[in-house]
Amino acid sequence: MTQLLRVQNFNVSSDGIGAGAAEDQSLESPFGLPDPGELFAWAGATASWPMRSEPGGSRGLDDYFTRDFAHNIGAEIMGRNKFGPLRGPWQDEEWKGWWGDEPPFHTPVFVMTHHKRPSFTLSDTTFHFVDGDPAAVLAQAREAAQGKDVRLGGGVTTVREFLEADLVDTMHVAVSPQVRLGSGIRLWESPDELRDRFHLEVVPSPSGVMHHLFWRK
Amino acid sequence: MTQLLRVQNFNVSSDGIGAGAAEDQSLESPFGLPDPGELFAWAGATASWPMRSEPGGSRGLDDYFTRDFAHNIGAEIMGRNKFGPLRGPWQDEEWKGWWGDEPPFHTPVFVMTHHKRPSFTLSDTTFHFVDGDPAAVLAQAREAAQGKDVRLGGGVTTVREFLEADLVDTMHVAVSPQVRLGSGIRLWESPDELRDRFHLEVVPSPSGVMHHLFWRK
Repeated sequence: MTQLLRVQNFNVSSDGIGAGAAEDQSLESPFGLPDPGELFAWAGATASWPMRSEPGGSRGLDDYFTRDFAHNIGAEIMGRNKFGPLRGPWQDEEWKGWWGDEPPFHTPVFVMTHHKRPSFTLSDTTFHFVDGDPAAVLAQAREAAQGKDVRLGGGVTTVREFLEADLVDTMHVAVSPQVRLGSGIRLWESPDELRDRFHLEVVPSPSGVMHHLFWRK
Repeated sequence: MTQLLRVQNFNVSSDGIGAGAAEDQSLESPFGLPDPGELFAWAGATASWPMRSEPGGSRGLDDYFTRDFAHNIGAEIMGRNKFGPLRGPWQDEEWKGWWGDEPPFHTPVFVMTHHKRPSFTLSDTTFHFVDGDPAAVLAQAREAAQGKDVRLGGGVTTVREFLEADLVDTMHVAVSPQVRLGSGIRLWESPDELRDRFHLEVVPSPSGVMHHLFWRK
């Protein structure tokens, strides 16, 4: 059984931007964007959204994407800027991510950083801090995933690094056509850039978002 | 956590027909149709199709539907005509379904029949033979599913019975617009018949099939 590296439910604006500039990220603004919620409103409206606090929500097309998020995933890789707004050496080890005592990953998570830090566990998620190039980090994550797939969680810069190293097998990007950001960290100028290496299906959802589904040729 | 009753990957022609007439079903023709493969070709082309014998296959939209088939499913309910072409009392107990030694269900399966027969197990699938109305059979399947959802596997007549009893929570039907059968067992005259009780999203797939996604209002 092939172990895939999968990007799942990654959100960008109509102009391909997934986060604000690094200097705009802060404790109050994990995405460095004035209103990041407008990029993932489609997911928040579904019945399977893990942070849903009330019953209800759509079970239409978008729900297939939210409920596939954890399906057959055995580990996640993320960049340091997804883990937190801190830069440089760890000042202390109090910061444990944005997600509280019950992170939504439920697998080992590999945080890419040049600065060492001991692993720690919150509920059923263990965070490891790893240095190394994308291929080396992927090898560690694959071993931890015990035969299951590995999710590449972002942020934008991390996804680009793995695309450049040609390590991504499948990628789902939800584009919000009504959101134009103008500046920030860009995933692409156009999704067509990836057509030489990937099949691409563009699926308009009744919610308005455009699901972009890539898989390796 | 709600335990849903879900119809998944159910295939019909453009005129709403999912199987040939009951008298056309035989050992050689499980669906009683001259070419049933044309109704599920879209699923067979995907990477996650469980009967796939070679690597490859699409990982686009249709693959989300094939890989969701077993996701969070703890039991299946099927009609006797899905289980086999035999009618009336069991002549012997040699017939064990169409699926060989490794049935693709991997959960308890409840076969609705008025004719008693002992349960048996093939690999990780146990078949139980149960009499009773849809609500009573659903109660048994829910208990066996241990908190997970129950899949309603068909055939067409069984799906209609559960719809009439208002027991179905979500339903995915793939309509093949290019296949017109004219006669056979009909799921509906039009999907619009269900709009009073269900939300409906109609999602055209790049493969040509039209995914119909229903969920209870």
